[in-house]
Amino acid sequence: MSSDYVFVNDVGPRDGLQNQKVHVSAEDRVRLIKALLEAGIPGVEVASFVSPKAVPQMAGAGDIVAQFIHSTAEISCLVPNQKGYELAKAAGAKIISVVPSATETMNLKNINMSLEETLSVSCDILRQARADGLTAQAYVAVAVECPYEGKVAISQVMNVAQKLWDAGAEKLIMADTIGAANPQQIRALFKAANSLFPADKLAVHLHDTRAMALANTFAALEEGIRHFDASIGGLGGCPFAPGAAGNLATEDLVGMLHQMGLRTGVNLDSLLKVSDLAGTLVEKGIGGRMKTWLLKNGGSLLAAQ
Amino acid sequence: MSSDYVFVNDVGPRDGLQNQKVHVSAEDRVRLIKALLEAGIPGVEVASFVSPKAVPQMAGAGDIVAQFIHSTAEISCLVPNQKGYELAKAAGAKIISVVPSATETMNLKNINMSLEETLSVSCDILRQARADGLTAQAYVAVAVECPYEGKVAISQVMNVAQKLWDAGAEKLIMADTIGAANPQQIRALFKAANSLFPADKLAVHLHDTRAMALANTFAALEEGIRHFDASIGGLGGCPFAPGAAGNLATEDLVGMLHQMGLRTGVNLDSLLKVSDLAGTLVEKGIGGRMKTWLLKNGGSLLAAQ
Repeated sequence: MSSDYVFVNDVGPRDGLQNQKVHVSAEDRVRLIKALLEAGIPGVEVASFVSPKAVPQMAGAGDIVAQFIHSTAEISCLVPNQKGYELAKAAGAKIISVVPSATETMNLKNINMSLEETLSVSCDILRQARADGLTAQAYVAVAVECPYEGKVAISQVMNVAQKLWDAGAEKLIMADTIGAANPQQIRALFKAANSLFPADKLAVHLHDTRAMALANTFAALEEGIRHFDASIGGLGGCPFAPGAAGNLATEDLVGMLHQMGLRTGVNLDSLLKVSDLAGTLVEKGIGGRMKTWLLKNGGSLLAAQ
Repeated sequence: MSSDYVFVNDVGPRDGLQNQKVHVSAEDRVRLIKALLEAGIPGVEVASFVSPKAVPQMAGAGDIVAQFIHSTAEISCLVPNQKGYELAKAAGAKIISVVPSATETMNLKNINMSLEETLSVSCDILRQARADGLTAQAYVAVAVECPYEGKVAISQVMNVAQKLWDAGAEKLIMADTIGAANPQQIRALFKAANSLFPADKLAVHLHDTRAMALANTFAALEEGIRHFDASIGGLGGCPFAPGAAGNLATEDLVGMLHQMGLRTGVNLDSLLKVSDLAGTLVEKGIGGRMKTWLLKNGGSLLAAQ
């Protein structure tokens, strides 16, 4: 393994909350973001510039972004289209992410655009962001399996990633959107990605739908990946992907990383309290798979690393 | 990865049931064993020859073993001491396992013997088993972390393993008795074991206490390990190890292996029903971490491999 530092990007305030039945106000989302930052989380996805009429859970994106423009953490937001990019830029966003899917059908079902059109729009935004001095990131969604087309050929994922890279993406995040991946697939995906892109420009977004998120995390670590998305309490899924549920929980990720002797800068004890806070905001008990053990026996593990 | 076949040894009828509050009769344990075999499980740990006065849950060991002497599956039993070995042999046992712990304190607390004494007894039994034409296996318990002494040096584990091997053990099963292992530790443990013993003579026994059993499984697979203990429904723990809970669930293991394209010979659909049966026997809902998803979405996965 290369570096012993792993960058943890918490997508809870956006991905985690976007599809909750309980709508969390912009003020409460800010509270959550601040709590994550205070726990030492180095990156947070704070908003998505989707239409607030279409996705009321994400209203107030501009206000939220504006509150963190002086943060030293990596504060990012999703920009699904040109209008979203302009609003993000106006709000002072420093890091923007586009989220094209790797397959034709997923893009059609998700945003009513073909793969080609989606990539065209995404690449335009990436180029603008670079020209405007923002940091541009790109997801490749359904990077392992598409709920409509099934397993996605790695070459197709790499082809999409290459286009995004050429348009200026400074980080490529492979997303297992429906949590279908097993460690073998994650390993193969990143062996390919490593052959084309620098490992420190790659990241992974895992779901725990099939209880293999930590196994997939280990596979990615073995391939030199050192940037992971996770969601506080394991909040989140994807509404247009039938059957998707449960992001990799940030406390599970940090819990395993620290036990493996890797550093994150996160205070696990504080993080567990943030998980509780997130639970009160969505009005249900949440937490990944390790929380119970951590609270009961975590002991010396529950300290900053 | 080497072979694509993985041997699954279900320890549910012994390890899973040994410490249950609900005592499962010998007849019901035989039902469970038969159901596992019918689901294609190739190895089952069916009994332990401990004193039935000390461990009433395990009464009837001889009767159970006798019912499977013609089975083509690998039917094994634990023999904690000389008397246990003699009873197992008399009952017609073909495969016996000794279970020494890797540390002084664990042996003292568990069976009131020093490490040296424990190994002496274990090696005696292994030699006798070989001379008597039985298959002799040896566990190394607390192979990663001891609840009393903390992390166990790999060299100490290897030293214990070497003695057991020299006495005739035909399989060495490294047991993470309290489920403390992370994938890094499993990888390191088996790198060392592989340097001393043939990979096909090695096996691993994992617990899911910290939700890392599948991650640890992947790490072991990466090191060429192709023999895994697991327990139907995730039943079991260890009463002398404070905080231990939950074996790796057989359905989780098989679920991940099949998704990775590995073969086990197990019918996952049938296995899930055996998990339900085991739950009725212990009078509680059981199942690992993947069961819900498998039942709802397992689809084509739920077929023999």
